[in-house]
Amino acid sequence: MRYIVGIDLGGTNIVAGCVAEDGSEILGVRNVPTGAEEGPDAVVRRIVTAAQDCIAETKAKVPGAEVIGAGVGAPGPLDTKSGIVLLTPNLGWVNMPLRQRLQDGLGLRTALDNDANCAVLGEWWRGAARGTRIAIGLTIGTGIGGGIIIDGRLYHGASDIAGEVGHMTIDANGRRCKCGNYGCIEAYASGPNIALRAVEALESGAESVLPSYVAGDFRKITAQTVYQAAQAGDELALEVVRDTAKFLGAAVASLINIFNPEAVVIMGGVTLAGESLFEPLRREVTRRAFKPAVQVCRIVPGELTGVAGVYGAARAFQEQVEAGVV
Amino acid sequence: MRYIVGIDLGGTNIVAGCVAEDGSEILGVRNVPTGAEEGPDAVVRRIVTAAQDCIAETKAKVPGAEVIGAGVGAPGPLDTKSGIVLLTPNLGWVNMPLRQRLQDGLGLRTALDNDANCAVLGEWWRGAARGTRIAIGLTIGTGIGGGIIIDGRLYHGASDIAGEVGHMTIDANGRRCKCGNYGCIEAYASGPNIALRAVEALESGAESVLPSYVAGDFRKITAQTVYQAAQAGDELALEVVRDTAKFLGAAVASLINIFNPEAVVIMGGVTLAGESLFEPLRREVTRRAFKPAVQVCRIVPGELTGVAGVYGAARAFQEQVEAGVV
Repeated sequence: MRYIVGIDLGGTNIVAGCVAEDGSEILGVRNVPTGAEEGPDAVVRRIVTAAQDCIAETKAKVPGAEVIGAGVGAPGPLDTKSGIVLLTPNLGWVNMPLRQRLQDGLGLRTALDNDANCAVLGEWWRGAARGTRIAIGLTIGTGIGGGIIIDGRLYHGASDIAGEVGHMTIDANGRRCKCGNYGCIEAYASGPNIALRAVEALESGAESVLPSYVAGDFRKITAQTVYQAAQAGDELALEVVRDTAKFLGAAVASLINIFNPEAVVIMGGVTLAGESLFEPLRREVTRRAFKPAVQVCRIVPGELTGVAGVYGAARAFQEQVEAGVV
Repeated sequence: MRYIVGIDLGGTNIVAGCVAEDGSEILGVRNVPTGAEEGPDAVVRRIVTAAQDCIAETKAKVPGAEVIGAGVGAPGPLDTKSGIVLLTPNLGWVNMPLRQRLQDGLGLRTALDNDANCAVLGEWWRGAARGTRIAIGLTIGTGIGGGIIIDGRLYHGASDIAGEVGHMTIDANGRRCKCGNYGCIEAYASGPNIALRAVEALESGAESVLPSYVAGDFRKITAQTVYQAAQAGDELALEVVRDTAKFLGAAVASLINIFNPEAVVIMGGVTLAGESLFEPLRREVTRRAFKPAVQVCRIVPGELTGVAGVYGAARAFQEQVEAGVV
C-alpha cells in the first residue's frame, strides 16, 4: 500500500499520520506540542521528527509500505502555489517557506494548504461529508475557520483566501471581531466567545452551576465548561448553547442560500454539545433558508475528531499533484 | 458569423437579441411586454415572435448569418437539466417546460438558466467582470438576485438554487424579508426597500425634496426617485443611498471573505446612484473584509445595461452545450 504523511500544524499541537492513498486507514498517528516559542527552526524539526516517527511505525506495521509524499495544513494566510506561509500570528511566522523546509527535511514531495481547508477536505474525503460533490465546513475553535468543497475539490478563490466563513457578517452593527469587522459569526460562536457570553450572563446575575465548576473564578470558564454544564442540564448553559445554535443558524442559512451544498459540517469542540446544539441549529436553518436548498443539505458534526486535518492534508497533497501545483 | 438568440424573460418585459458566438456583437434587440396576465401560452408566443423578429433582422443585416441555438434566462427556481421552470410567482407558472416549448416554437436547440445567473454571466463574458476567473454579481431590482462565476462558468450548486446572495443575513434580528427570513440584504437594499427606508424617514419628519417629486404622495416614491433626489444633492436621499451602501457593504464584504473573487458586479437601477453609492460601498467593504481579499477584487457597476441577461442567456447556451446538458 502507498501512504501520504498528513500533517496538521496548529498553534498548540502538531498532529501527523500516514494516510493510505485510498483513505482507507491512518497509521502511526503522532501528536506533539508545537513549541512555537522556540522559533520556526525548532517547529520544523519537531514536524520532521513526528512525520519520520509515524513513517517508521507505518513501515514496521505494513511490510512493503511506500510513502509517496507529504501534505501539511498550516494556519494561513498562505500561498499554495509557492508553498509559503505568509503570516501566522499564532506562530509568529512571516513569509515562511514551509513547503520547501519540509520537503528538504523529509525528502518527500510536499504540499501546503490552509489548516481549516484541510480539515474540511478530510471530512469530505473520509468523514461526515463523504459522498457529496459540494460541501461547506466550519471549524469552531479559538476562531471560526472554514473550507469549501466544490466538485470534490477545495475551492481556493483568486488568492488562497476563500473559505473564511467565520467572517461572514450576521449582525452588521454587532460585536467587534478580532478581524476588525463588526458582527462576524466568529464574534458570537467561537469557543472564547461562547464562554464570554456565559460570563456576561453570570455577571448580570444569572443563576447557574457554572461558577461551581471553576471555584467562582469566571476567567476559568471555557466553551468546554459551558458544554459540560449544558449536558448536566444547567439552564443558563443550555441557553448559551441555544443562542450559539441561533447565531450559527443565521450563518449556515446564508451559506446554504449561496452555495446550495449537500452537506454542512460543523467541526471542533462545539460538537460536544451534541443534539442540544444541532437540533436548534437545524431548526433555525429551516426557518431561515430556502426550503428546496435545505432539503438537499445535511447539517452534521465532523466525524474525524482530531485527525480530520491529517486526512485532509494527505488528500490536499493528491489534489495538488493532480493539479500540477507540486 | 454564427449567432445565438439570447432571451431575458422578466415579469414585465421580454428582451431578445442575436449574440455573435464570440460575444463581439448583439443584433436585432427586441423589448416587448411579457403580458403574464394572458397566461403561459401567450407569453411563449410573444417570446417566439420576439426571437423570430430579431433573427430576421440579423439575417437581413448580416448575409450568411447562421443562428445555432437559443438561451433563455427565466425567474427561478428552475431545473437546468430538465429545462423546467418550477415556480415563478411573478408569472404564475408551476412546472412549466419552457425549454421544450421554446425549442418547439423556434426550431432551435435551447438552454434554460436562471435570469440573475444569466445577467452575471453576461457581465462576466462581455461586461464589467470580463477577464476574471471568479466573479460574483448582485442584481438589484424588485428583489436582489445574484450569480456566481467560478473558473469562468456559472456555479449552480447541488440543485440549481445557488447564488441567492440577496438572501444572506446581514442582521439576524433585522427586517423581515419576503423569503420568510429576517435581516436578508434584500430586506434593506432592494429597490422597494430603498424607497421604503426613505418613506420611513419622511414619516418621522425628515426634511427633503422628495415629497415635491411625488406631489406629496409618499406611495409614489420609488428607488428611482431617491436616486434622482440624491443626484440633486438632497440630504435625506443621500443618507438613504449611503445607508444602502453600508448594508450592501456588509454583504459584499462577507462574499469577498467567502469567495475571494476578482470582481463583484452590482447591477440594476441602483447603479444610477453612481459614485454616491460606490464610493461609500467600497469604503465599507475595505473596513469590513480581509485586506488581501479586498486588494484583488474590483467592485464595479454592470456595463451591459438592459442586455446583460441577453448576452448571458446566449453564453449559458454555449456552457450547457459544452457540458452536455442540452
